[in-house]
Amino acid sequence: MSLPAAFHDIAKRVNNWGRWGEDDEIGTLNLITGEVVRSAAATVRSGRRVPLALPLRQDGVQTGVIPGRVNPLHTMVQINQELFGPGTVATSDDTVTMGLQAATHWDALPHASHSGRIYNGRPAHTITPHDRARLSGIDKVPPVVSRGVLLDVARAKGLDRLAADHAVTPEDLEEAAEYGRVTVRAGDIVLVRTGQMRLCLEGDRHGYAFPSPGLSVRTPEWFHARDVAAVANDTLTFEIFPPEIENLWLAVHALDLVEMGMLQGQNWNLEELSTACAQERQYAFLLSAMAEPFVGGTGTPVAPVAVL
Amino acid sequence: MSLPAAFHDIAKRVNNWGRWGEDDEIGTLNLITGEVVRSAAATVRSGRRVPLALPLRQDGVQTGVIPGRVNPLHTMVQINQELFGPGTVATSDDTVTMGLQAATHWDALPHASHSGRIYNGRPAHTITPHDRARLSGIDKVPPVVSRGVLLDVARAKGLDRLAADHAVTPEDLEEAAEYGRVTVRAGDIVLVRTGQMRLCLEGDRHGYAFPSPGLSVRTPEWFHARDVAAVANDTLTFEIFPPEIENLWLAVHALDLVEMGMLQGQNWNLEELSTACAQERQYAFLLSAMAEPFVGGTGTPVAPVAVL
Amino acid sequence: MSLPAAFHDIAKRVNNWGRWGEDDEIGTLNLITGEVVRSAAATVRSGRRVPLALPLRQDGVQTGVIPGRVNPLHTMVQINQELFGPGTVATSDDTVTMGLQAATHWDALPHASHSGRIYNGRPAHTITPHDRARLSGIDKVPPVVSRGVLLDVARAKGLDRLAADHAVTPEDLEEAAEYGRVTVRAGDIVLVRTGQMRLCLEGDRHGYAFPSPGLSVRTPEWFHARDVAAVANDTLTFEIFPPEIENLWLAVHALDLVEMGMLQGQNWNLEELSTACAQERQYAFLLSAMAEPFVGGTGTPVAPVAVL
Amino acid sequence: MSLPAAFHDIAKRVNNWGRWGEDDEIGTLNLITGEVVRSAAATVRSGRRVPLALPLRQDGVQTGVIPGRVNPLHTMVQINQELFGPGTVATSDDTVTMGLQAATHWDALPHASHSGRIYNGRPAHTITPHDRARLSGIDKVPPVVSRGVLLDVARAKGLDRLAADHAVTPEDLEEAAEYGRVTVRAGDIVLVRTGQMRLCLEGDRHGYAFPSPGLSVRTPEWFHARDVAAVANDTLTFEIFPPEIENLWLAVHALDLVEMGMLQGQNWNLEELSTACAQERQYAFLLSAMAEPFVGGTGTPVAPVAVL
Repeated sequence: MSLPAAFHDIAKRVNNWGRWGEDDEIGTLNLITGEVVRSAAATVRSGRRVPLALPLRQDGVQTGVIPGRVNPLHTMVQINQELFGPGTVATSDDTVTMGLQAATHWDALPHASHSGRIYNGRPAHTITPHDRARLSGIDKVPPVVSRGVLLDVARAKGLDRLAADHAVTPEDLEEAAEYGRVTVRAGDIVLVRTGQMRLCLEGDRHGYAFPSPGLSVRTPEWFHARDVAAVANDTLTFEIFPPEIENLWLAVHALDLVEMGMLQGQNWNLEELSTACAQERQYAFLLSAMAEPFVGGTGTPVAPVAVL
Repeated sequence: MSLPAAFHDIAKRVNNWGRWGEDDEIGTLNLITGEVVRSAAATVRSGRRVPLALPLRQDGVQTGVIPGRVNPLHTMVQINQELFGPGTVATSDDTVTMGLQAATHWDALPHASHSGRIYNGRPAHTITPHDRARLSGIDKVPPVVSRGVLLDVARAKGLDRLAADHAVTPEDLEEAAEYGRVTVRAGDIVLVRTGQMRLCLEGDRHGYAFPSPGLSVRTPEWFHARDVAAVANDTLTFEIFPPEIENLWLAVHALDLVEMGMLQGQNWNLEELSTACAQERQYAFLLSAMAEPFVGGTGTPVAPVAVL
Repeated sequence: MSLPAAFHDIAKRVNNWGRWGEDDEIGTLNLITGEVVRSAAATVRSGRRVPLALPLRQDGVQTGVIPGRVNPLHTMVQINQELFGPGTVATSDDTVTMGLQAATHWDALPHASHSGRIYNGRPAHTITPHDRARLSGIDKVPPVVSRGVLLDVARAKGLDRLAADHAVTPEDLEEAAEYGRVTVRAGDIVLVRTGQMRLCLEGDRHGYAFPSPGLSVRTPEWFHARDVAAVANDTLTFEIFPPEIENLWLAVHALDLVEMGMLQGQNWNLEELSTACAQERQYAFLLSAMAEPFVGGTGTPVAPVAVL
Repeated sequence: MSLPAAFHDIAKRVNNWGRWGEDDEIGTLNLITGEVVRSAAATVRSGRRVPLALPLRQDGVQTGVIPGRVNPLHTMVQINQELFGPGTVATSDDTVTMGLQAATHWDALPHASHSGRIYNGRPAHTITPHDRARLSGIDKVPPVVSRGVLLDVARAKGLDRLAADHAVTPEDLEEAAEYGRVTVRAGDIVLVRTGQMRLCLEGDRHGYAFPSPGLSVRTPEWFHARDVAAVANDTLTFEIFPPEIENLWLAVHALDLVEMGMLQGQNWNLEELSTACAQERQYAFLLSAMAEPFVGGTGTPVAPVAVL
């Protein structure tokens, strides 16, 4: 079994291998220039700050279906410990064990591979338990601060959330951009809202996980045409799940991460942002979504913030 | 044994308990208003982005002296795993175990307690293994985006790094502010550079840890007078270590976190920022330093970014 | 709310506080003498060895209901790593994160407390995040090797497994002892089989967990009268769950661990042993069930073995 | 670079591939028969039980030199938690993160590989992050209960511990067997004492680790000739370290684990056993050293016990 021709056709059109040099490890993040950042800062009007991360706790979004992707196990190792003797100032310390892709996260480029390759045509076997992802690992990612754009697909359609079998198409993205009176530009980080997160927030983790609306295999070309720097959404799987094309699993991952070299974000909570953007009538903002620099990481928890 | 009168005198002067209501859990972060954020965005000139986090890896800054504060143990749980069958798109996943205060981090307010109290006079015993810090935990922290100001104490003195027994005083802070031609204002996040991080970057983790220059017990009043929102520096212990006053361990922690309710950051890498600020002749910038929202956490790894 | 008189009546009758001195930390394990061990070794006839531990894996018995009691997360940190250069001998290493009570385990005596006390009347507050259980922790447990006796309650009744609401009574234990033609003696480790483990082995983890047959609140007196050293069974909760007496949760834990100071084992797989004992017509054997010596641990995974 | 002829010569002589069938996953543990176990039980005289595991704690034997092999991080997740309401019976739970080879442990056969092969000629690439060691993993190991024999090399030579550059030879083993008046037989588990553990117990972890006496590359043949089932000793590296033959690192691992398929134990504390055997004038005993059945594990912590 191998990937179908339909996949390879799109792959050819969105491929960025070599575009920023043979040694490039950051892909479309190259598109975030100083000018982009300046214009991002210029979008700030009210100074309203909207956080986009889910709380980190053991009762998180993971249901156990994905092996090893564990919710945070957060334990105290010291509580009010008077390390320097009785009556001295006391401290409390804690520790965590968690999957880097378990909560609100960025996928690093080497999170996906196909046909033995990761981004920029590097061999997938360069990922090892000892070195982890030594090429394009999450520690290589430069500061992720840029102009953010919310494409509120659900709200543009007058829905609380998209149907579970709705693949978000380029036409949906256009419609949402028009709804928000915003134009997607080079270097932008695009946040696509499906409303699926509502299920998670209401406590239905299984309903949230599967089946799920998500990005269509047709969207990578749309992002590629606009030189988008990164894309995140409010679902567990990012792309529609199960996929539009039978047995073509994770095609969007392969196109975005491997072919384009574009960061993907998942499990972003866009509910408060949806309200804020509607209230402020502002769909472009300053977005900071810094990766924790795990050396060789194929992902990272992230605590993004939109500043309107 | 109890804390000396000298401590309690300062404590009285900087105490913010009740200032933002009896139920307040965020302390001086209340001082970051929309206006402060707008003015922060207005500082952006070149769009240059400087990351301030150390790489996260097992060979991190912890030497084992602080029990339970473990460097990141980062392991792969999947490598190029074709979850949907041979020839399909493959994914790689990883997991981490680490102390929340092990690397570049924020201390949450309840990280320190004294005399049985945490910030806002709440009982320290509210921290339990089951609930962790249910009051003022790191998950309660609003988005930490504000104007950042670098007080480059070492550079202002013409030094690579301060001597190991140098307590950074209010006079040092004034000198560095003057050097940078910057005025610290309400809602600012102040970054204090000692240069001590150089030892760490050169591989001398033990020299980095102890003895260490750091903030004097006299600085909380200076920050309090200016209504600073948060302070971070480039040392393991934040305050001078061993302390200026014999046996008065962690006094600055107690004053900042417990009395003022002011976030403290440690192990921030300010070396590149020092160069950037000098080059750009700009010591105020937009700072984003988002806490990962660990529910009940007494700290969090953070990947801060300064945007100049 | 406090524990009812019915509980305190039994507690008085089975209490062993002070029996082995005020400083004793091991309770009924004092009853395993050299003579007991010699007689245990003398039970060995065929040399058949039956392991009693469940496999340790992420898909283990925990369903997430008990906070923090996580199934093993087992990851590779090295795979065929040629640490000394290409072509040299390679090694593979792994790491685990798990709850000490998550799988086949012993509860240490301080795993339970009531009315502020642990075994031997020591204050429960001696358990802290820093020291963990510094009194009667699992590291204090001497080698757990003794005569084991299987009381196969299910088989004695001609059942595959007991009904979910079956509280195993002293009469049931007598019946099973008679069925196995075995007399429980001082220093014995008694294994009580309900057959509930079958649900777990068939993949029904939720059915296994709750509701569950288990030991009646009347059994501690029976064990006490016979000076049993330790008891283990093949359920998640050890005692019948929900309890026989409304709202009297974990009474057997309190009686066994706190009052008697008797180790309890849970999630022991007694299915193969049930077959072996029936085949060999031998219900007493040498049992080794060594605790892993976690300093201050309130439990330990255990890999017990019965030698017939 | 590849392994020298000297290695391959020995390898040929000790190789057990195919000896117990092409599908065998347990190697020399096949040699522990019912008869061996019966004779092991018959060695019990006093019933004295000697534990052989080091305490499990963060301040354990690992110094950080071996990447990812972390000492136990043991934290409390519940302390005296009244899960069923105020005044009810309370419980305490804990969790651990640790390297499976970090403390007193068994190496599983696939812990070592060379020339792309693990035990029984299987491909080393069958070890993956997803499946871990699916062949010959520690979960495949049958109950490790057999006759144990202490070869107290240090005591036989009248030494507290061997010199750091002492490679334990077949002649040393003979001498120790003669000293103990014991004959090594098929199915025995041999414990070789160097006394190096004393350094560790005195707090000198670095001295304990390196340089270290240990088994000579000539010993596998001696064990092979006697059909020994498993071997453990009281050092970090098992074999002399650095090795006797320059650049021939981990040759004993390769011979024992890969070629012979013989379990190896490291960091066993044989000090109390040394005293006990001398006092009882008994160097053969019942040994139980059960592996924790981590599915796919390449090692396991073990809490062995010798019963004299």
